[in-house]
Amino acid sequence: MFRLRRNDGAARRGTLELTHGTVETPCFMPVGTAATVKGLTPADLREAGAQIVLANTYHLWLRPGRETIVAAGGLHRFMAWDRPILTDSGGFQVFSLESRRTLDDGGVTFRSHIDGSEHRFTPENVIAFQEAIGVDVAMVLDVCVKLPASREELAESVRLTTSWAARSAAARSRRETAAFAIVQGGLDPELRARSARELVALDFPGYAIGGLSVGETREEMYATARTTAALLPEDKPRYLMGVGTVRDLIAAVDCGIDMFDCVYPTRCGRNGRAMTRAGEYNIFNAAYVNDFAPIDPSCDCRVCKTYTRAYLAHLFRSKEMLGPQLLSYHNVALLDALMRDARVAIERGAWDAFRGSGGV
Amino acid sequence: MFRLRRNDGAARRGTLELTHGTVETPCFMPVGTAATVKGLTPADLREAGAQIVLANTYHLWLRPGRETIVAAGGLHRFMAWDRPILTDSGGFQVFSLESRRTLDDGGVTFRSHIDGSEHRFTPENVIAFQEAIGVDVAMVLDVCVKLPASREELAESVRLTTSWAARSAAARSRRETAAFAIVQGGLDPELRARSARELVALDFPGYAIGGLSVGETREEMYATARTTAALLPEDKPRYLMGVGTVRDLIAAVDCGIDMFDCVYPTRCGRNGRAMTRAGEYNIFNAAYVNDFAPIDPSCDCRVCKTYTRAYLAHLFRSKEMLGPQLLSYHNVALLDALMRDARVAIERGAWDAFRGSGGV
Repeated sequence: MFRLRRNDGAARRGTLELTHGTVETPCFMPVGTAATVKGLTPADLREAGAQIVLANTYHLWLRPGRETIVAAGGLHRFMAWDRPILTDSGGFQVFSLESRRTLDDGGVTFRSHIDGSEHRFTPENVIAFQEAIGVDVAMVLDVCVKLPASREELAESVRLTTSWAARSAAARSRRETAAFAIVQGGLDPELRARSARELVALDFPGYAIGGLSVGETREEMYATARTTAALLPEDKPRYLMGVGTVRDLIAAVDCGIDMFDCVYPTRCGRNGRAMTRAGEYNIFNAAYVNDFAPIDPSCDCRVCKTYTRAYLAHLFRSKEMLGPQLLSYHNVALLDALMRDARVAIERGAWDAFRGSGGV
Repeated sequence: MFRLRRNDGAARRGTLELTHGTVETPCFMPVGTAATVKGLTPADLREAGAQIVLANTYHLWLRPGRETIVAAGGLHRFMAWDRPILTDSGGFQVFSLESRRTLDDGGVTFRSHIDGSEHRFTPENVIAFQEAIGVDVAMVLDVCVKLPASREELAESVRLTTSWAARSAAARSRRETAAFAIVQGGLDPELRARSARELVALDFPGYAIGGLSVGETREEMYATARTTAALLPEDKPRYLMGVGTVRDLIAAVDCGIDMFDCVYPTRCGRNGRAMTRAGEYNIFNAAYVNDFAPIDPSCDCRVCKTYTRAYLAHLFRSKEMLGPQLLSYHNVALLDALMRDARVAIERGAWDAFRGSGGV
């Protein structure tokens, strides 16, 4: 399924074959939590260069629910996206509910943030849900711990995450849906190593590094990503969850990571924050009202080829929905192009120069 | 500039040549008040069949202002729309401000709804603004009266509207921008006739019927539109302002109207109201949660070819911005296709059958 085509230092250039197509790595996955990447149509996503999108089991489970998606003919048909889809297991969302959930060895019981109704996730039913809606990659249910956490809490989350991963693997029944495990262990090198070792022994087709990008420093995140990535098999894809800035993507590719997801580019897009390889800026700044340059003069996306900062500034000041639409498009296209260029740099053995320039 | 190609009863099939292209009539103009048709890109509009869009002098005057649009190279380049643009004069918006404006024979002074700053519109500066931003069709500043109104108020609005129209004609200085006059007179046939007669004597290249679709009954509107249209020259385009439902468009074409604008299809699109030729419905209705038909099975627009009612219902229930985007697109495409089919029906001498079927 995954083929590592080239290394340049720790940076990796690979190919991930999934049911709905091939994903060239490293790659960024735009987040479509509720079966829609906010503000972008599937045609927009294809044009922006997205190879795979992420959706979320927690949200889809609650709304529209399994029955509707299955009746639609699966998630791809429901959202009219024909390229690969990865669904997060919902573990992160459920554990974020804190007071509204109770954990036991069998699973986690929680109340919906929408209507307060009670639901229960188990490793088995979360895999069954993702298989039923027909995604390309299902994430196993993991146990997430809020940082800072005691060593005991972290050790317990690693124990249960491994146990649930084993149950998830046993529960699999659909060849077309691959399941990735999620390494936990917070910032503790020993627990990360234990989690990685235990999950690698279960021989998953891919591994995610979870529990990062949750408030720790960038240095802590990079250090943990680097040491954890080094413990994962060379011939399996590595996915760092929740990372989505230019700087973090470049640093994480340098740690040996292949896949990323984050709401960051679309959330920034809705809030008027423009991303460029040279840095970010707020389109509401008065300087942009009469600035007729593209959002990012070095970007070749449709929005940068068509509109000016002045027009975007006008749209945002006028609270026009086209502003968030266009800026979200640019931000997603920017990260996709960044990863495209990273792939070329690794292929050419020029990763260090690319990294050193910040991708500019 | 306007060529009447065929009559079928009162219904007219024409061609309007403007600086940025030819508009086939009857036609519906989507409304982009603040230099954006809410939720739709220029590429969306072209694909949906829009031949011309409307923007608003009042809104653009206040934000982003003449200087920015001129610096951008005109309104077309500012909003990246290369087909014709018609701008409303802002008369309707200014007179809606009521307590925030004072009228005199020279013009109208008002306070911005955005920041309370004071501004003044005169027939001359409103024409100058529209010429400066380079639109294809400028509307003259008219005096709008809220209905019901006394005959004296209506007569005064007709007097001033004619006087301002004459001043607008004299103020014109740009060949590429055509100016249309606006017939006023409320529901009073005699005043409408007077207004039409006085404006026709000024020989404008096109005439709008203003002051309708403001709370009167449909029957009152149709009656006034029909009698007023009959008083306008055959060889000039006729534009009924503020009309945008399937039923009203068909009825108004039958009155001899050529052009329409309304925020209705995009406002409905944002609120979950789906338009079809057979009637409208609310996508929030529980029936649509598991309805996998297109929004309108008889519609050939991109949204109807791609997505289901169930997906739209999910997007609206999840407050996802893609819902308003997709439904606005469909509603606009629906009216454009309705007018396209109306043109064919008139060409074929089959207008009565088309009208009788409600366009279905």
